Amino acid sequence: MPEYLPTAPYRGTRDFLPAEMSVRTQVFEHLYRVIESYGYQRYDGPILESAEIYEAKSGQELADQQLYTLTDRGGRRLALRPEMTPSVARMIAGNAGSLQFPVRWYSHPNCHRYERPQRGRVREHWQINVDIFGSESANCEIELFELVHDIMGALGATEDMFVVRANDRTLLSSALSDVVGVTGEQLLQVFSLVDRWEKYDREKLAADAAEIGLTDKQFERLGETLTAGTALLDELPAAVREASHLVEVLNSDAGRLVKFDPMIVRGLAYYTGTVFEVYDTSPENNRALFGGGRYSDLAGLFTPKEIPGIGFAFGDVTLIDFLTTHDLLPKPRNEFDVAVIPVVAELGGAARSVASALRRAGLRTSSPLEHRKLGKELTRADKAGAKVVVIVGQEDWDAGNVTVRSLATRDQRTVPAAEAADAVTRLLTGSP
Amino acid sequence: MPEYLPTAPYRGTRDFLPAEMSVRTQVFEHLYRVIESYGYQRYDGPILESAEIYEAKSGQELADQQLYTLTDRGGRRLALRPEMTPSVARMIAGNAGSLQFPVRWYSHPNCHRYERPQRGRVREHWQINVDIFGSESANCEIELFELVHDIMGALGATEDMFVVRANDRTLLSSALSDVVGVTGEQLLQVFSLVDRWEKYDREKLAADAAEIGLTDKQFERLGETLTAGTALLDELPAAVREASHLVEVLNSDAGRLVKFDPMIVRGLAYYTGTVFEVYDTSPENNRALFGGGRYSDLAGLFTPKEIPGIGFAFGDVTLIDFLTTHDLLPKPRNEFDVAVIPVVAELGGAARSVASALRRAGLRTSSPLEHRKLGKELTRADKAGAKVVVIVGQEDWDAGNVTVRSLATRDQRTVPAAEAADAVTRLLTGSP
Repeated sequence: MPEYLPTAPYRGTRDFLPAEMSVRTQVFEHLYRVIESYGYQRYDGPILESAEIYEAKSGQELADQQLYTLTDRGGRRLALRPEMTPSVARMIAGNAGSLQFPVRWYSHPNCHRYERPQRGRVREHWQINVDIFGSESANCEIELFELVHDIMGALGATEDMFVVRANDRTLLSSALSDVVGVTGEQLLQVFSLVDRWEKYDREKLAADAAEIGLTDKQFERLGETLTAGTALLDELPAAVREASHLVEVLNSDAGRLVKFDPMIVRGLAYYTGTVFEVYDTSPENNRALFGGGRYSDLAGLFTPKEIPGIGFAFGDVTLIDFLTTHDLLPKPRNEFDVAVIPVVAELGGAARSVASALRRAGLRTSSPLEHRKLGKELTRADKAGAKVVVIVGQEDWDAGNVTVRSLATRDQRTVPAAEAADAVTRLLTGSP
Repeated sequence: MPEYLPTAPYRGTRDFLPAEMSVRTQVFEHLYRVIESYGYQRYDGPILESAEIYEAKSGQELADQQLYTLTDRGGRRLALRPEMTPSVARMIAGNAGSLQFPVRWYSHPNCHRYERPQRGRVREHWQINVDIFGSESANCEIELFELVHDIMGALGATEDMFVVRANDRTLLSSALSDVVGVTGEQLLQVFSLVDRWEKYDREKLAADAAEIGLTDKQFERLGETLTAGTALLDELPAAVREASHLVEVLNSDAGRLVKFDPMIVRGLAYYTGTVFEVYDTSPENNRALFGGGRYSDLAGLFTPKEIPGIGFAFGDVTLIDFLTTHDLLPKPRNEFDVAVIPVVAELGGAARSVASALRRAGLRTSSPLEHRKLGKELTRADKAGAKVVVIVGQEDWDAGNVTVRSLATRDQRTVPAAEAADAVTRLLTGSP
């Protein structure tokens, strides 16, 4: 053991000092407001879950390599949730009898994955999850696409800064089998290959395709299929097109909200229909910001009832990268608005009573804990972003007064102590 | 493996369905506001920490029996934080060079302890932590006691519903050695006995005292000491009294905020001075709601700099029990304020566009995902707590209108679709 323990947080996790926390809080409060404006209700669940709920459905890579697991003192095998969807499916299944479907829920959990830390990838991140349960209507897709656009708008993004690329796994499956000639056994492996399509070079993709058992011809056809855009739809059987929610969306007025893209498939194993990813259009940050999709049988792990779900999730890391790239990050909030400063230590109690009255009037107010010279406290208040100081001097106080001063304009006036809150409010609002 | 996985959350942890989450959110938002009104800034840290930071200072019981530990895939021994203070001490020590002391910080982490679940005890709870670092002034104690009273007030509690019982470990140590004759080696064990004093019966306490090596006479003297109240102060050496922050507080105008109680010691090993606990005065819930104290060398685990700290923490479970006992619990918020209902499925797009305009006007607005009869949707809107519905019927819509109806008064009017937001706002605010 070293003489002193290290002060860095555990690798891949982050401390949020107040300035960073203030930015994070402001960003997510914007999002809460937008999501709640659609009538989504916030829920929460435990960070520890039974490990088996991820092993069953989230996919091999996640369960085998990325899960943080532990065994409790009672011998139960647990995992730190790597994502929220299995938890919410569990909660929906467990409470299905008393819920009024369809339900719109959202949450803001922290999730853990054991990954090599790199840009955009951490081991603990904060994630917003938005889901609808209990509806098979394409209106779900439309509402979520509208919500995605409103979320981006609330963050200050304009429509040219991002694009929603959407696909439907039923369309992709059909294209892979009918157009490329992929077999049922190869399907999941080819999905995984498609998910890597933009990340790997052509040589590596060709090698992976060969390993799955695709011919050179099939590999070429696969490339054409993935880049065909809406033209691909004409090659698919009419019954497949007609059953697709995404095709319904594309044919409606909401079609403008998304771009059909056969290359979008998503990594998680449980998606069954619509899948989408929101991409930053900036060349320096060209990657998926977040995504989601429809999962028809995740609740089926827990209940014989059929409860379809659709949702999306986005994490704080990619979101804050996006806002930084586009210069949209909010500024940290000031520490407090008003400082009440006693000129001599003996007036500490007097300053406290004035500060208390200001707080009751709704003003964020600080009063020094240690006595220092007035000049030092004024500098401190200025650094903290305070706009007004209230100075409690002996002569003033003996006459029942305090001095209220604007740090911006240096405008200052002496007022009865009982009227300090009014005087500060007038200074802050600029009224005479 | 059973056919279906269980839907209950892991034992000792909780799902928060929207109604419960709404209550929790409202309660804690009150608290954020009060704490921020004093200029405290929110921070956050990772849930995973190196296990050794708890083993070093938090005390034997916590480290040996209550810690959730795991080893990551890189062989690092980690713990789910059982409390926040060691984490914040680590962050303060690591950033001491750039911080302007004293700093006022708060956080709202979830913490884990392996305990037998029972009333008031869970394995995962949400906790508010409030701390001041870098000041040895008794003004810290005074400010935190004021804050405690303001917090309780913001929750709706009146002064008769709770009492702040405060002690100073330096006073208690002196009393134990000077009055009871406890030796230096016995001190920590006697602290632990004092912490159990109100929970155990006299027989069990006597047996534990004997085990520590106290005589019957000393045990009797200990009982008298713990119940002596302020009279005990007169028995202590003047130098000890004069050095005590708590005595300074008791002698000031802030003395009214606390009751001196030699029996308060707190369980955590790292407290060095003032300790306090807030008790519910209700006979049916007579126990500590939360508490805190001064810790002079916790940052010393991480840095040679001396950075004193003082703070308190309170969890959601005891807090919500308190609010329930005193009938102060806020009601869950309604799901949304307005429903926009298309009379026929073909008007779904029209309803969506109206809903979108209402949201832009700041109204929480829902529109059905699946088409059902108007009557059913009206009932659904009423159950969701909506106050107004906007009905989009074919004839109205063809004429560019919608019908706006108050669910409370049945008052209804037909207005141009473009004016729906205004009409709804007028209905909600009761203006003509």
